[in-house]
Amino acid sequence: MLLGPGPERVDTGTGTSGQNHSDDFVQVNPLRKVPALKDGDFTLAESVAILLYLARKYEAPDHWYPQGLQARARVDEYLSWQHTAVRMSCTRAMWQKMMFPVFLGQRVPPETLANTLAELDRCLQLLEDKFLKDQDFLAGPRISVADLVAITELMHPVSAGCDIFKSRPKLAAWRQRVEAAVGEDLFREAHAVIMKAKDLPPADTAVKERLKPLAQLFL
Amino acid sequence: MLLGPGPERVDTGTGTSGQNHSDDFVQVNPLRKVPALKDGDFTLAESVAILLYLARKYEAPDHWYPQGLQARARVDEYLSWQHTAVRMSCTRAMWQKMMFPVFLGQRVPPETLANTLAELDRCLQLLEDKFLKDQDFLAGPRISVADLVAITELMHPVSAGCDIFKSRPKLAAWRQRVEAAVGEDLFREAHAVIMKAKDLPPADTAVKERLKPLAQLFL
Repeated sequence: MLLGPGPERVDTGTGTSGQNHSDDFVQVNPLRKVPALKDGDFTLAESVAILLYLARKYEAPDHWYPQGLQARARVDEYLSWQHTAVRMSCTRAMWQKMMFPVFLGQRVPPETLANTLAELDRCLQLLEDKFLKDQDFLAGPRISVADLVAITELMHPVSAGCDIFKSRPKLAAWRQRVEAAVGEDLFREAHAVIMKAKDLPPADTAVKERLKPLAQLFL
Repeated sequence: MLLGPGPERVDTGTGTSGQNHSDDFVQVNPLRKVPALKDGDFTLAESVAILLYLARKYEAPDHWYPQGLQARARVDEYLSWQHTAVRMSCTRAMWQKMMFPVFLGQRVPPETLANTLAELDRCLQLLEDKFLKDQDFLAGPRISVADLVAITELMHPVSAGCDIFKSRPKLAAWRQRVEAAVGEDLFREAHAVIMKAKDLPPADTAVKERLKPLAQLFL
């Protein structure tokens, strides 16, 4: 367990094949989104909130979410910014490049995809210029939860075949540092589901219908 | 100052008329967004990160961002969720209902606006059902930064003429409690700029051009 001992004491749901709409899951997270955490009677949604909860509960080493006023603010700044920037454009790129054509059998207008990839590129530039700069990690010299949140999102377009690291050596070097810091095996395990998404069989009609409202958010 | 003494010691930029693209402002926030904070040599972007920084720096009373593991996780959960839910749909509703037609002189397709308002309604329902529930405030019995972040976003569609509280007595009662907790004068001051946005004169061609890429994000 990355952030501390005792993974058997908390349950997280991180599946991608619709369990998040089951009655049991909705009890844990009424927002119907993965991941969600159940720790005894306490349930919690939102990956950022879950990471901070685990870091606090298991008293993770300081670098994950530093106590220092300014160092912590740098992590908070990234965690806040990424929702409508990196996260949004990575998710949209994955849906438009893979989920729509492969899984839903729906064409995405080329200009829509082009705009999405341009927006993703703009976000990656900001990620390098404003956050990474000449540091080893996004919020400073050591790895923090900001890096975990970032790499998880960046692997979404990668899973759809966008090699976002190819033309960005600085970002590629950062990715290598993150992988080394968490360990190759854990890195692979963490992204195994998303990296297999392109091999999903096309969705059946019922799934397509259920995904329609969600999918529209990514066009 | 809501969160503690010493407002003269930090500068925040919260304007809405383009100062955020000036050279001076970009020095403070390379993301070119308001608000931004400058505290001595330290600069910080993202309203959520700024609120948490101020709460910590000025040791705000515990209820704003509670120390308790689960109580704090509840606040973090809201702060994380709202970015792509309440914040996104409130901003989109304001742009589509006011900024496009009044400020940019651009028509928004009725079905686009209808979808946006339906999504806003879905978010408000989740806000009531998942967060507010039968509590006085969003993350528990006392006001927290979650309520400040929420009310600020909800006043965006209100400024555009969407009376989102009219059909939602539970949410309207919460709004009254937030207003009472922060004080009427401060509440009015905090929303003065956004409530006047509808009286802006139509943008000139240069401003329209500059706003185009941003505006497209809200269609």
